[in-house]
Amino acid sequence: MAAITKVSPLAPAGGFPDLPAIAGVQFSAIAAGVKYADRTDVMLASCAPGTCVAGVFTRSATRSANVLDCQRKLGQSNSGEGYAFIVNSGNSNAFTGRAGDASVERICDAVSAAVDIPVSHVFTASTGVIGERLPDERITAVIDDLAGSLDPGKVRDAAEAIMTTDTFAKGAAAEIEVNGRPVRIAGFAKGSGMIAPDMATMLVFIFTDAQISQNELQMMVSEHNSVTFNAITVDSDTSTSDSLLVAATGASGVDVGGQASFAAALHNVMRDLAHLVVRDGEGATKFVEIRVEEAQNAADARKVAMSIANSPLVKTAIAGEDPNWGRIVMAVGKSGAKADRDRLSILFGDILVAEHGWVADTYQEEDAAIYMRNETLVITVRLGIGAASDTVWTCDLTHDYISINADYRS
Amino acid sequence: MAAITKVSPLAPAGGFPDLPAIAGVQFSAIAAGVKYADRTDVMLASCAPGTCVAGVFTRSATRSANVLDCQRKLGQSNSGEGYAFIVNSGNSNAFTGRAGDASVERICDAVSAAVDIPVSHVFTASTGVIGERLPDERITAVIDDLAGSLDPGKVRDAAEAIMTTDTFAKGAAAEIEVNGRPVRIAGFAKGSGMIAPDMATMLVFIFTDAQISQNELQMMVSEHNSVTFNAITVDSDTSTSDSLLVAATGASGVDVGGQASFAAALHNVMRDLAHLVVRDGEGATKFVEIRVEEAQNAADARKVAMSIANSPLVKTAIAGEDPNWGRIVMAVGKSGAKADRDRLSILFGDILVAEHGWVADTYQEEDAAIYMRNETLVITVRLGIGAASDTVWTCDLTHDYISINADYRS
Repeated sequence: MAAITKVSPLAPAGGFPDLPAIAGVQFSAIAAGVKYADRTDVMLASCAPGTCVAGVFTRSATRSANVLDCQRKLGQSNSGEGYAFIVNSGNSNAFTGRAGDASVERICDAVSAAVDIPVSHVFTASTGVIGERLPDERITAVIDDLAGSLDPGKVRDAAEAIMTTDTFAKGAAAEIEVNGRPVRIAGFAKGSGMIAPDMATMLVFIFTDAQISQNELQMMVSEHNSVTFNAITVDSDTSTSDSLLVAATGASGVDVGGQASFAAALHNVMRDLAHLVVRDGEGATKFVEIRVEEAQNAADARKVAMSIANSPLVKTAIAGEDPNWGRIVMAVGKSGAKADRDRLSILFGDILVAEHGWVADTYQEEDAAIYMRNETLVITVRLGIGAASDTVWTCDLTHDYISINADYRS
Repeated sequence: MAAITKVSPLAPAGGFPDLPAIAGVQFSAIAAGVKYADRTDVMLASCAPGTCVAGVFTRSATRSANVLDCQRKLGQSNSGEGYAFIVNSGNSNAFTGRAGDASVERICDAVSAAVDIPVSHVFTASTGVIGERLPDERITAVIDDLAGSLDPGKVRDAAEAIMTTDTFAKGAAAEIEVNGRPVRIAGFAKGSGMIAPDMATMLVFIFTDAQISQNELQMMVSEHNSVTFNAITVDSDTSTSDSLLVAATGASGVDVGGQASFAAALHNVMRDLAHLVVRDGEGATKFVEIRVEEAQNAADARKVAMSIANSPLVKTAIAGEDPNWGRIVMAVGKSGAKADRDRLSILFGDILVAEHGWVADTYQEEDAAIYMRNETLVITVRLGIGAASDTVWTCDLTHDYISINADYRS
């Protein structure tokens, strides 16, 4: 485990939220001793017949055996039967060669038999050390116990079982009414973004009792993903295991097809979970929103935002509460996006820092220094080139990041 | 100045080398109080008539007024008259709007008058804080003194005057014989790569008494630059002021056109200076060579090498002397280059760590842990896809990097 295990100062004050039960979904969790002792490390979720599943996964060229298996299965047609998700922490089953594929197969076979769901509907995720054989026999040994203890109320147990270097369990939910009838969404995530050491993994599971086609759900998830989970960064390092799975059981009997309120509610749950991952960024003491406006196009806006969010010099300045706007200029310049020194403006919160290629006439460094003491910061860059904008979220880079990651495994 | 000013543990044991005088080149340095007190901070170099100059500059979209001026002048025809380089530390004159352009013009005018060289042959470079007005009147006030104290032996004074957060002055030289007659190259550099805080700047000046056409020199410099200065990274942050200028005075009377020995000697001086910049990387305790072999093409090889060299998780593992090869797999996977889990091999020094998509049969973690204690490390990745290769150099990411950059300016 990480050298530093205190709870992140950016964790929500209220702790894990009270997630609503989702009709058609049950959870269980158990201590299988995959790697850790004295804690739960495997979770099972089962979804009733009629469920459809959408997902997005890491684009890493060295992605795990589990991710490859999920991607194959997601493309297959829905037979109307239920779905199961089986997830372990402590070992990512990434870069484990053919043996990793065999581990996934054995786990899926065991789950399929225990919960009577076809193998093609069993999705796996593993999170933890890269390159060590997954002791799948420890997981298959507990699957009957997991299947026997499924319960609609155990979502928090599931969220805790998949933590690795996380300092708090992360959950989010929404309830909306469609045509006067309630629809619920609940989800949980693990990971400190792309930065979890060795375990470089973010896993997200979201459940809803809405009734929706797989096709529409998948399009919605992919679209929201680009402005939620794909818009966060802790340290620019991309996982070999990142997986987001969304299951809609239909058990509410409410058809949400074409309903903007459902799309918005799902977006909000995804955004909240993405923010929670940044708030558990290793060593983080600041939650930072980077807004880029007036870019030539959306790709340029994202490039500039990520260049700022990933810059070690920007992130260390934020850690030091230093309104060092020269480093923002540097990050804009290196991004590769179209920019013009004389049209660029920079704001810290509402404070106009720079415009017309130079420091703003009204700028007082004392004001900015006071602003930088906030725990949540908004940095806005207006490029003055076009009409595209984008927003990403990140955290600062501190001594604790070095401590956690330099002293981790050996 | 930086919070940590001890000399880098990776500095050369012998200190600044004894650089040969280059016929036709003279230097001077002075304390002008641009920002720092009690140290030299402006240097002047003059090159005799007949000199030709080649250069490469940062591609940043927010590059400094000086860089823009150098780029304009470099494209102009050579009038056969001499050249002058005037360089200050303490202020980068970047993001200083139209005022920055005017500063460059006033400095060039003053130098032109003092050393009787046309303004179009006066090149400037500034390094230091971004976004503060350059007090150019402090520089123009000392130009007569600088012009009056030019001396072929003052190269070390010049190298020291341009330091900002550097912990040691960086020089390199070569002497070769062409047709039995000696040709000399001497150069110096400042910067801790792209990472120098606020001062985000690397400056390099190289002088030779070789006789060569501007066209051939420029082609040679651009080609070598891609495998020397463009192949180093400390923290992925790109300067607004990076400048490399190479002046050939021709004063040796030796035509080196088409001479492979001269091209090799210039390459070696550029490579040595690039390595010295990495060895002064902020907080660095390890000098790391990343070799990528068997890539599909050169662009892929560079992508993988830079993905590894810039990964905070890889760099912190190296700082912790942890042979954490899973993080190398992660960095290969996220690079965007073509890779295949089952063809990838990883070596630490001569130790085969992983092959065929998994840990190597012969691998003993104890061996790798001992290897990681070395100050100089070589990490080799064989992609098994094609025939292209590339090599880049970097350093580790330590607590001192955070201390220097989080506590710098305010």
